[in-house]
Amino acid sequence: MEVNDINMQSDNCEPDRAAHPGIFLCHQAGKSDHQPAGRYVDFPVSVVLPAGGSGERTGLQTPKQFCSFLGRPLISYTIQAFERVSWIQSIMVVVAKENMDLMTDIIQRFQHRKVRVVPGGSTRHRSICNGVLALGEEEGGRSAAERPKVVIIHDAVRPFVEEDFLYKIAMAAKEQGAAGAIRPLVSTVIATTSEGYLDHSLERAKYRASEMPQGFTYDVICQAYQRCSESDFEFGTECLHLALQYCGTNAKLIEGPPTLWKVTYKRDLAAAESIIKETLSRSACIITGGSTQAATLAVALQKAVSALDMVRFSSMDELSVSGRMAEPAAIMDLASTAKLRNILLYGIQLHQSKEAERWEKSVLRVAEIASALIRDRSPALVGQLLQA
Amino acid sequence: MEVNDINMQSDNCEPDRAAHPGIFLCHQAGKSDHQPAGRYVDFPVSVVLPAGGSGERTGLQTPKQFCSFLGRPLISYTIQAFERVSWIQSIMVVVAKENMDLMTDIIQRFQHRKVRVVPGGSTRHRSICNGVLALGEEEGGRSAAERPKVVIIHDAVRPFVEEDFLYKIAMAAKEQGAAGAIRPLVSTVIATTSEGYLDHSLERAKYRASEMPQGFTYDVICQAYQRCSESDFEFGTECLHLALQYCGTNAKLIEGPPTLWKVTYKRDLAAAESIIKETLSRSACIITGGSTQAATLAVALQKAVSALDMVRFSSMDELSVSGRMAEPAAIMDLASTAKLRNILLYGIQLHQSKEAERWEKSVLRVAEIASALIRDRSPALVGQLLQA
Repeated sequence: MEVNDINMQSDNCEPDRAAHPGIFLCHQAGKSDHQPAGRYVDFPVSVVLPAGGSGERTGLQTPKQFCSFLGRPLISYTIQAFERVSWIQSIMVVVAKENMDLMTDIIQRFQHRKVRVVPGGSTRHRSICNGVLALGEEEGGRSAAERPKVVIIHDAVRPFVEEDFLYKIAMAAKEQGAAGAIRPLVSTVIATTSEGYLDHSLERAKYRASEMPQGFTYDVICQAYQRCSESDFEFGTECLHLALQYCGTNAKLIEGPPTLWKVTYKRDLAAAESIIKETLSRSACIITGGSTQAATLAVALQKAVSALDMVRFSSMDELSVSGRMAEPAAIMDLASTAKLRNILLYGIQLHQSKEAERWEKSVLRVAEIASALIRDRSPALVGQLLQA
Repeated sequence: MEVNDINMQSDNCEPDRAAHPGIFLCHQAGKSDHQPAGRYVDFPVSVVLPAGGSGERTGLQTPKQFCSFLGRPLISYTIQAFERVSWIQSIMVVVAKENMDLMTDIIQRFQHRKVRVVPGGSTRHRSICNGVLALGEEEGGRSAAERPKVVIIHDAVRPFVEEDFLYKIAMAAKEQGAAGAIRPLVSTVIATTSEGYLDHSLERAKYRASEMPQGFTYDVICQAYQRCSESDFEFGTECLHLALQYCGTNAKLIEGPPTLWKVTYKRDLAAAESIIKETLSRSACIITGGSTQAATLAVALQKAVSALDMVRFSSMDELSVSGRMAEPAAIMDLASTAKLRNILLYGIQLHQSKEAERWEKSVLRVAEIASALIRDRSPALVGQLLQA
């Protein structure tokens, strides 16, 4: 006798939402807490997201903010990170003119709210400045009371920013006028002579890498851009420097988590994909049949797949495919249809045995195969009936 | 009628060697050139490889140099990168006392030649110093003529260093006394006040990140360590700085490729794995049966799997399993045996059709599945008979 199991995973990048909740059997202990945790921001905060980079350093044709991960461009993950934060009012995405249509299409396709797109300038500072000015001009001219109190500036290629860190930046920016994320230096920084020799090396403990996000009161960042020179616009890279030089504001520096890192090189794309996959795997869903054997299997699987933070079991009836599963061709058909809706469907056939030892071995194998499928999310293998 | 294809991939991390060359049908255009390109180093060069790090920043129990990628620890890839270079004489690996046995075991298991292990000190400089001193003392006291002229210092967690860059470092070190790899800064570097506020930011264009490898004449690095202070040993991190301060040697700085990066954070493990897999995939091998249909398939596959730099086809006879393939259980058995020898074996069953369109579609599907298997290298899926 055989029990057929279907391992189904949604690839639509919304791991936190489930259309059919089913029966929850399992611990949710490891699930990261995205709740606002009672923190309340009582002033308006908006975001400027410069996304004009050409992605030269990845060596790819597509600028890295538009590279796709599991069917969703990187910038969409970043926007999502901000949209999840209830106290963020609006997000101004600044892109190169030639990418305006692409960006508008992404916003529609992934149903982003809160977002507006403005064309970028020829340098980073010009682009950010365009975004800040656009915030002030929203909806045909705003009164001072309607303008954001704090503007958070972030990079489109740092998708893993979290709410609690944004909270720290927003609060410090409101208090100090400016605030920025820092990280320890990974390498020693050295000064070179014009001939390419070592001039001196910096004492690593005294310096930090300046990262994103950064926050400014609207007044400070506006004033900084009004007063700064053409040379700043052309060659500068550091907003905190402008706030210091033109507004006398010494930014508060806050050490951020390593996840703030910037997708810069080709290898970073693999790193980003692995983090996205790991996050999605937390809400993996294994659906079994409703028989007693299936229930036993469900419990055994739940134990075995402990690498996943959450495994959810629900009845086969939800799939409305019962009875058809024994045929590989039927699975292949079902998988082809599901793939169009961005759902990856694989079959695992478990050869049930009365011998306890063989049965346990098979269940372990189901768990091993399921973990690999969830981790790799390979579209090439959908519809396969794998043997456990 | 069915034709069975076996897609076999060696996981023993020696993509450049093939026990059974088979028939080469395919372009090797994209293969990266590992030949010494006529470059000749006429002085003795040795390497010191400090590998004492605890790997705190990855958040893992195992120090990152000992983390395994496709069955081989990271440090073994780094050693391999140096062993491939004919003009490098010896490699001194410096590890924490508690890892001496582990390291000795790795050297035996992966048949490293040229390598000796010495115990590290309590800081990075003490460890490197131990390695340098051990080079001078090799084989019970050496005469000055037998000592290395140039010592290259590298990190165990930078496995992707290439021969042409080592050549540049060795030549510059011999000429200048010291030479080091640099990379552009990814983030702006800022100085902080003791209260955690911005003091000033550095002009990014004037500074560089100091990376590895670095090279020194044996005399310069020995003298630097003889003369430097306890405080240098305790808190310093930069060998180039010691050469400058204690020997008056301004190191020549050479811009290195992005692959010199250091595996530091957990995300870097995913990035390293993707590079290792990409390199291995270059020598992927697809073995088909010997019939006319199989030959047609081979040509079609070769076209379809153009993502791979090299695809090699040889006769099924080499496998000596002909006739057994139709049975899934037989493939599973064969795969279990192969797995013990670190070979991952998957089956793909192609349903042949007389209709040209269906046939082409199936061949494309074989190619798609094969590419996914080669890329993901999932041990959990070995022995499966997949349907194309």
